[in-house]
Amino acid sequence: MKLYDWSPAPNPRRVRIFLLEKNIDIPIEDVGGDNLTLSPEYVRAYPEALVPMLELDDGTRIGEAMAICRYLETLYPAPPLMGTDPLDAAMIDMWERRAWEQGMLPAIDVLRNSLPQFADRSLAGRHVPLPQIPALIERGRINLNQFFTKFDVQLEARHFLAGERYTVADITTLCAIDFASLSGVTLPGHCTNLTRWYREVSARPSSVLSVKRTDGKPNALGQ
Amino acid sequence: MKLYDWSPAPNPRRVRIFLLEKNIDIPIEDVGGDNLTLSPEYVRAYPEALVPMLELDDGTRIGEAMAICRYLETLYPAPPLMGTDPLDAAMIDMWERRAWEQGMLPAIDVLRNSLPQFADRSLAGRHVPLPQIPALIERGRINLNQFFTKFDVQLEARHFLAGERYTVADITTLCAIDFASLSGVTLPGHCTNLTRWYREVSARPSSVLSVKRTDGKPNALGQ
Repeated sequence: MKLYDWSPAPNPRRVRIFLLEKNIDIPIEDVGGDNLTLSPEYVRAYPEALVPMLELDDGTRIGEAMAICRYLETLYPAPPLMGTDPLDAAMIDMWERRAWEQGMLPAIDVLRNSLPQFADRSLAGRHVPLPQIPALIERGRINLNQFFTKFDVQLEARHFLAGERYTVADITTLCAIDFASLSGVTLPGHCTNLTRWYREVSARPSSVLSVKRTDGKPNALGQ
Repeated sequence: MKLYDWSPAPNPRRVRIFLLEKNIDIPIEDVGGDNLTLSPEYVRAYPEALVPMLELDDGTRIGEAMAICRYLETLYPAPPLMGTDPLDAAMIDMWERRAWEQGMLPAIDVLRNSLPQFADRSLAGRHVPLPQIPALIERGRINLNQFFTKFDVQLEARHFLAGERYTVADITTLCAIDFASLSGVTLPGHCTNLTRWYREVSARPSSVLSVKRTDGKPNALGQ
């Protein structure tokens, strides 16, 4: 198995954290190109043009971060990050999807519609020019505020988002929050539960921004 | 168990099809209100303000269509709609997510940013006004065309999207295509594989637009 990664992107980071939490050691290749693009070689070989992608030894390719995680969860069940019974798994899946749609998608909207490097690339994985839509920046910020407030309420009576155990719902939420902060969107002061949770989850060893890479380059922190 | 549904919406339809394919018989309540809204009673009782939602007998609520389906898949494993082994499950999950993000989200963008009923409600489940963004209509149409073409290629050598078995990847794709057609976006003539697949999947008894409801109203076809 080999994971195709792009270190600044929030999606593959979800899988990198998952691997670290489970202590799974597989080769990781960074396929970043110039000026915040994926390398032309990667896009040619994998026209889906998205990361992360897990390539199995027989050449089968699994895309979509949570599809990759679910596959790995079966192969490496400990520690469980996607639930221990059907209801637990459903609640984790629900909160992970909410974190994705209500947190990560607006964070992506804010960044991709403002950085000049993403002119004509306002969505990933598309093969036609998609102009930036400035109105999505403001809408993204409004959505992020609703996301922060909702998740703050959810964390009032729970240690982690889906209960007393750290799960993929926490992973996606962390990645969404960190990605939003790249655009200067930070946690509101009134979200004390979310801030408590953020401090604790960020301190886990898995939360470092990069993991062992095969290309020898420094991680996003220059380390 | 009880399913909260809104008959014109594409998301709960995914779960209704899933129930019919598995022959699961549970009460379904339509919580639609006036003028393409959810009823105020439902929103008050469930501030997440989204459908579908599955309420268990102890009051636990599961939101997000695929989280509900995964829960039901464990309780009612036959016929399997989410995979029969880890790799099969991963490929189905991957194609379902692509259908959702690359097909359904643009179809929603086109509809919600054009119908006057959705002025200030360009996304579902938000509690602050979100003005429509006309540029998302054109971007949605471009994305839908890429979606059609990509899924057409995938269906060239496969009976169903993730292989030889009908799965949730087919369900979400069907719902995305039908929802896009509400805005007048139809399958391009060159997508012959997708059209063959669409004709066959649409003919399944589960594909009817409504299912047994508890409110006695006619379905979206007036039947």
